[in-house]
Amino acid sequence: MAIVTLTTDFGTVDGYAGEMKGVVLSLAPSARLVDVTHAVAQGDVRGGAWVLGRIWRRFPPEAVHLAVVDPGVGGDRGAVAARVDGRWFVGPDNGLLTLVLRDGEEAGTARALDPDRAGLEEVSDTFHGRDLFAPVAARLAHGDDPPGSAVPPSYGPDAGGELAEVIYVDGFGNAMTGLCAPQDRDRTLRAAGRDLPGVRTFADVEPGGAMWLVNSIGLVEIAVNQGSAAADLELRVGTAVHWREKR
Amino acid sequence: MAIVTLTTDFGTVDGYAGEMKGVVLSLAPSARLVDVTHAVAQGDVRGGAWVLGRIWRRFPPEAVHLAVVDPGVGGDRGAVAARVDGRWFVGPDNGLLTLVLRDGEEAGTARALDPDRAGLEEVSDTFHGRDLFAPVAARLAHGDDPPGSAVPPSYGPDAGGELAEVIYVDGFGNAMTGLCAPQDRDRTLRAAGRDLPGVRTFADVEPGGAMWLVNSIGLVEIAVNQGSAAADLELRVGTAVHWREKR
Amino acid sequence: MAIVTLTTDFGTVDGYAGEMKGVVLSLAPSARLVDVTHAVAQGDVRGGAWVLGRIWRRFPPEAVHLAVVDPGVGGDRGAVAARVDGRWFVGPDNGLLTLVLRDGEEAGTARALDPDRAGLEEVSDTFHGRDLFAPVAARLAHGDDPPGSAVPPSYGPDAGGELAEVIYVDGFGNAMTGLCAPQDRDRTLRAAGRDLPGVRTFADVEPGGAMWLVNSIGLVEIAVNQGSAAADLELRVGTAVHWREKR
Repeated sequence: MAIVTLTTDFGTVDGYAGEMKGVVLSLAPSARLVDVTHAVAQGDVRGGAWVLGRIWRRFPPEAVHLAVVDPGVGGDRGAVAARVDGRWFVGPDNGLLTLVLRDGEEAGTARALDPDRAGLEEVSDTFHGRDLFAPVAARLAHGDDPPGSAVPPSYGPDAGGELAEVIYVDGFGNAMTGLCAPQDRDRTLRAAGRDLPGVRTFADVEPGGAMWLVNSIGLVEIAVNQGSAAADLELRVGTAVHWREKR
Repeated sequence: MAIVTLTTDFGTVDGYAGEMKGVVLSLAPSARLVDVTHAVAQGDVRGGAWVLGRIWRRFPPEAVHLAVVDPGVGGDRGAVAARVDGRWFVGPDNGLLTLVLRDGEEAGTARALDPDRAGLEEVSDTFHGRDLFAPVAARLAHGDDPPGSAVPPSYGPDAGGELAEVIYVDGFGNAMTGLCAPQDRDRTLRAAGRDLPGVRTFADVEPGGAMWLVNSIGLVEIAVNQGSAAADLELRVGTAVHWREKR
Repeated sequence: MAIVTLTTDFGTVDGYAGEMKGVVLSLAPSARLVDVTHAVAQGDVRGGAWVLGRIWRRFPPEAVHLAVVDPGVGGDRGAVAARVDGRWFVGPDNGLLTLVLRDGEEAGTARALDPDRAGLEEVSDTFHGRDLFAPVAARLAHGDDPPGSAVPPSYGPDAGGELAEVIYVDGFGNAMTGLCAPQDRDRTLRAAGRDLPGVRTFADVEPGGAMWLVNSIGLVEIAVNQGSAAADLELRVGTAVHWREKR
């Protein structure tokens, strides 16, 4: 039984995610649906890319990942089914797969999906999640060959290298940076006018205290024990950080 | 394996939806649960009806749809299991099925569910979702005959006809009207003191620009590209709209 | 096919719950995942305990309950797999299982989980939900013996007795108290300077009217028909209540 994961910015208020689920189950009745999130900030392709970048390796390789954060729906952004390390990813070709493509070891051929040639009944101009991406994901889950023509996989603006700034703030207020874990954890990180000590885990400082630590995907993260680093230190996506010189 | 979809206003904070899921799985162990939404606005029967009206046709016909937006629970509103186009719907008889009944081609017999005669162990007065509707949905998913006595299916106040006003505002701020798609899309819609051009999709106007388009269920919808029509144009449910005369 | 339920305070914005799901499915490919909630207030162990206390008996006995509200992750709080009335519960040993242990009839042996000895590949210091609890839950769902050493199950501060105060406010604004249902429902409850009549269900008073009733888990709850008792009566967790003397 194939697994189809869903990652969207649809929220759950309106039934849009429900419609996609119905389409997948209608075309692949034995598929097992797994909600990753429908709470990506609306139109936040970068945020969606981070979520997708976190989760994909955790799932069995046969899972198909359906990801739709699609502010340009109906415009000229591409649509894609891409195979990375043996997994299928289906969604708009707008940077949402950036981190998957960056972290994957073997990017297979991607397929450009043409709404007019996908062999689908009717494709609306405003809801490709339901009318294009969900049917394609269902068919892949069902073991069918992917539709579309072969294209090189595309990489978004985030690919490669370290980034000495906050790149994501999670729901707890933890501020993830684009810095990789340093060899030497006895270093001081400078952020928002504060010197932050490196620790192993949240509880290593007093409640309310700020720190940096290596997070669960190997990046440097700024946190406050039992508090919100983003609120307390006024951090947001783009806030610069740097390592203090050792004296 | 039968599918049971869930559409409620319970939120996910309190475990109420979780209790319903446990009841369904206890009575129909092989059922596959699909969350449509638990984020209908509290007590918003009309909003719940719109969600349900969107999603039901997308699912395989054997799916059972469990829908609970039930501000009158324990009072004298009825409870119903209704069969429409071969699908089962279970929930309070308070208008929640209005659009399903309106759009369905063949409304089968509905059954009035009497909490005291449903053969259930114990039915609380405050949580029919768990104690009445979930067990009935589970039995239908299991292939059992429906309990209760035959009644004519009821239609709520929304049934039939076009409605020249905003009838729903989604999480993106798109304002759905009750107007059906016109033959001629070269028309101007008047709403909130603004003249809105008709386009094919969001990206057909500049970011921030307002438009009307035919949405993914065939109704006229007011939108702002990469923005919120509801916020920018001050639209809400009930705001009147009309077609401009052509000159 | 084993059921694994998930109850966390992770929200759904960040993909953390998605990572846990992937881990469970990778280790127990046939497991069926059921979201109970990911919307427990962050770090609110007591709130999580209430949700868990509501839902567990509703599920089939073979379900494994994975519960992670874990503000002390990486610190010295314990980690546990506990068997109660034949069901498995996996999570931090911080009081989250308090109500399960209180209400269960037969508390089996609990196992203390040592991240360093659990035979797991790598365990981060900040995300035991993914790296410790999810793998253990998956193995239990798969029918494996639990890892860890036997310990007595621990009870948190809430165990036993009635509590004459508001103990939980749900998403509808209903204020649950720790008082058990009295034999005589013709009593008056005093709360926040108001005398509240006892009724059977919400609809027994006028819209906007306040009442107490016996809620769906047998506790006394303060509600306002079609309104929020918490907002209207200024109730919060800890607000004292008491029965009026009969005259």
